Amino acid sequence: MKNHSSEHIDDQMIKIEVTIDDMNPEFYGYIMEGLFALGVNDVYIQPVIMKKNRPGQVLNVLCSNKMREKVIDFLFQETTTLGIRYTPYTVYRLEREFIKVETKWGECTVKIGKRQGKVVQVAPEYEKCVALAKENQVPLKWVYDQAKEKGYQWVKEQQQLLD
Amino acid sequence: MKNHSSEHIDDQMIKIEVTIDDMNPEFYGYIMEGLFALGVNDVYIQPVIMKKNRPGQVLNVLCSNKMREKVIDFLFQETTTLGIRYTPYTVYRLEREFIKVETKWGECTVKIGKRQGKVVQVAPEYEKCVALAKENQVPLKWVYDQAKEKGYQWVKEQQQLLD
Amino acid sequence: MKNHSSEHIDDQMIKIEVTIDDMNPEFYGYIMEGLFALGVNDVYIQPVIMKKNRPGQVLNVLCSNKMREKVIDFLFQETTTLGIRYTPYTVYRLEREFIKVETKWGECTVKIGKRQGKVVQVAPEYEKCVALAKENQVPLKWVYDQAKEKGYQWVKEQQQLLD
Amino acid sequence: MKNHSSEHIDDQMIKIEVTIDDMNPEFYGYIMEGLFALGVNDVYIQPVIMKKNRPGQVLNVLCSNKMREKVIDFLFQETTTLGIRYTPYTVYRLEREFIKVETKWGECTVKIGKRQGKVVQVAPEYEKCVALAKENQVPLKWVYDQAKEKGYQWVKEQQQLLD
Amino acid sequence: MKNHSSEHIDDQMIKIEVTIDDMNPEFYGYIMEGLFALGVNDVYIQPVIMKKNRPGQVLNVLCSNKMREKVIDFLFQETTTLGIRYTPYTVYRLEREFIKVETKWGECTVKIGKRQGKVVQVAPEYEKCVALAKENQVPLKWVYDQAKEKGYQWVKEQQQLLD
Amino acid sequence: MKNHSSEHIDDQMIKIEVTIDDMNPEFYGYIMEGLFALGVNDVYIQPVIMKKNRPGQVLNVLCSNKMREKVIDFLFQETTTLGIRYTPYTVYRLEREFIKVETKWGECTVKIGKRQGKVVQVAPEYEKCVALAKENQVPLKWVYDQAKEKGYQWVKEQQQLLD
Repeated sequence: MKNHSSEHIDDQMIKIEVTIDDMNPEFYGYIMEGLFALGVNDVYIQPVIMKKNRPGQVLNVLCSNKMREKVIDFLFQETTTLGIRYTPYTVYRLEREFIKVETKWGECTVKIGKRQGKVVQVAPEYEKCVALAKENQVPLKWVYDQAKEKGYQWVKEQQQLLD
Repeated sequence: MKNHSSEHIDDQMIKIEVTIDDMNPEFYGYIMEGLFALGVNDVYIQPVIMKKNRPGQVLNVLCSNKMREKVIDFLFQETTTLGIRYTPYTVYRLEREFIKVETKWGECTVKIGKRQGKVVQVAPEYEKCVALAKENQVPLKWVYDQAKEKGYQWVKEQQQLLD
Repeated sequence: MKNHSSEHIDDQMIKIEVTIDDMNPEFYGYIMEGLFALGVNDVYIQPVIMKKNRPGQVLNVLCSNKMREKVIDFLFQETTTLGIRYTPYTVYRLEREFIKVETKWGECTVKIGKRQGKVVQVAPEYEKCVALAKENQVPLKWVYDQAKEKGYQWVKEQQQLLD
Repeated sequence: MKNHSSEHIDDQMIKIEVTIDDMNPEFYGYIMEGLFALGVNDVYIQPVIMKKNRPGQVLNVLCSNKMREKVIDFLFQETTTLGIRYTPYTVYRLEREFIKVETKWGECTVKIGKRQGKVVQVAPEYEKCVALAKENQVPLKWVYDQAKEKGYQWVKEQQQLLD
Repeated sequence: MKNHSSEHIDDQMIKIEVTIDDMNPEFYGYIMEGLFALGVNDVYIQPVIMKKNRPGQVLNVLCSNKMREKVIDFLFQETTTLGIRYTPYTVYRLEREFIKVETKWGECTVKIGKRQGKVVQVAPEYEKCVALAKENQVPLKWVYDQAKEKGYQWVKEQQQLLD
Repeated sequence: MKNHSSEHIDDQMIKIEVTIDDMNPEFYGYIMEGLFALGVNDVYIQPVIMKKNRPGQVLNVLCSNKMREKVIDFLFQETTTLGIRYTPYTVYRLEREFIKVETKWGECTVKIGKRQGKVVQVAPEYEKCVALAKENQVPLKWVYDQAKEKGYQWVKEQQQLLD
């Protein structure tokens, strides 16, 4: 499994937007799941106010331009929209590395983000923290905060931060 | 037509809430209109996040407790909900008076709100301002601001404000 | 398994609210899941604006008053709040019945809501529709709409609606 | 009256955005109406948080680039903004056809959306459903759901869907 | 200066709500500041959708019932509303203690929240973290996370947590 | 001090977006302040719904393209994100002039916006109005409305508006 990716700028990204005002809101969970399964980078829903007092949603999908047709097919199939729009975006992405740290409740994964070789982000993996919290019946916040602290210690030992 | 009502505290009000996550959002306009036709005091929709990534809405209806059954009947009929909740509220309402003012573009109505006999609110009537703006093809904001200014002048002449 | 419950008014409900402005938003999914596991009736999150330009959330939990201490313990444990508030609510609940309908893609469950013996709601079960959509690789909206139509037909045969 | 339009990709669209934090919120209804009267494709309002704890709105207008100056004139005239921005968008639009269906309560229009000749959307016309619901004093949801079902039947008869 | 308060339940609280659709949104910052100056416990703003496509706000104020008249006077004076409502709430509050911790960048205050004598919350003081971040020109997140970690260590030394 | 700038179209602007779902919401105030200190044109936060029931935020920054690297450095440093995206925007900006008006409570600044030499906006300076309201202990809305009226009078005297 690849657990390292280098810093880069990607100028082949697009944001696809669908403005929806006539769909059962229950469907969004299924649609988000389907979009991630297709391989898109991110999905989010923005509550908006549309004509005639309609509480609509703008469904935002970030993906590479080469996935465009596949994503648009999926959106026409699963949502109720008659029109879909997109615009190009350029994305800056940090170098990412996944490290293992030892917490009081077990081993946890922490995502490290680097900019020009220097650590800027230390982010415990949510699902791993949840698993440890459930297994040990302790608050999720304790597990998460301790995993982050262990991540900071790892960084410090590598002389990359805080000194 | 009654155009004056006295300041009072009403402790017989309720707020009815319906949390909706499976209804076509187009229906809200119709439902709001129907609720106002029943005689409720106010209606508003709050975007919320529900389980399973559903962008839901909380429909809030403010009305007197004695209208409760009628409103609940309507909500079960027109929304998709299986449960409706309410809680009592006490409402402070200002004395209201509707005055006529003369703007450059025609006569406008202004709502005056008084607390213990003293003017605290000066609010041009939206629909009247819209009518004047359309008729005279001037920006709505100019009409509204001038109607408000004329309202302030009326108050000042009555020695109730600004001196 | 009980699949029928009668119409009633429950005046022993409360809404618990927690206003949160300093918690990692990733935690909400875990907290919602934990609250439903405790047996609360509903949970939803409202985006709000707090002091100092903080985009906060009000976490709303609807539950019976007798669960109050258990829910409050959980919320202090899992969120970052130092204060939790609640207020009583009365809830009207429809009679609920779960029926089985046959769609082109397989059997589906539909929830029927009745008010004074008369059907007012026809709601296909989301998870069942999702399962059929995935299994048959058809749009979820088709499955859902057809299950609803079959639900309406069931009601019609029972002479309870549309005639 | 034209009731058919073919599927196409339009790369001459723009999204105009205005971020507003100092305008009377009553004006939005009038502004939306005015924008649709100009012929824009869509308008929606997004609640946002601005500096100094201001609950602002981003007014989004989708229109063809050739309408740009006209729309910008209108927005400077009717809103309070001192700056307006836009960015190009490409829009995918389905082939649209309007069909008539017969419901228990009268004739209704249903919008059909097609992708590469295949039906993907079946959308009853909201205003027509509202008219039938009012005229027959039945819930809007019943009218809408039946009109949709009749739309699906029409599609099925045309062998375009569900088989 | 008192820096300790005991755990308690306060059943003399109210939530005051004002639904506003015709006020310049710039005013909210001033109003929030004024409300806190009066001594209320909390204030937050909820974006809502009101009639006629108005993006309104519900201004929520939590305070003790004995402050009610003072707060209502202020709200009628500073907002544009003609009606203000409230409902009683009961609030559970944790025992609070403010401790000092030493970070790499200087001393910071951490708020400790206890339930039945047991620590459940460890919350660095935002303003103090901001001051240290500015002074030392380091990311606020580093200061905050380290202050929290030092708070956890203090708790651990007191044998109240994590063992 | 420059208090006049001419109308222009700026096609060298960008909108930078960061979607954030794992950061303490307290940090946004500090981040907004820091961004304005860098010299960006505008910042706003949009509440969104992300995967796994996370109430996230999209942080939007409008700035000139030549500031891009500086802003992106700041955002990686102060937020928790691992990716930042941007897209170009063209901005129309009105001619701006700052005038002084005399209100009953003291001198106030009013921003005047002109399109092709004609006044379209009259906007009292918020901070100045706040200072006068506090100093004179009168409602902010009175000060603001009067400053605006005086601004309209200034415009009228210049024969640029309302005649």
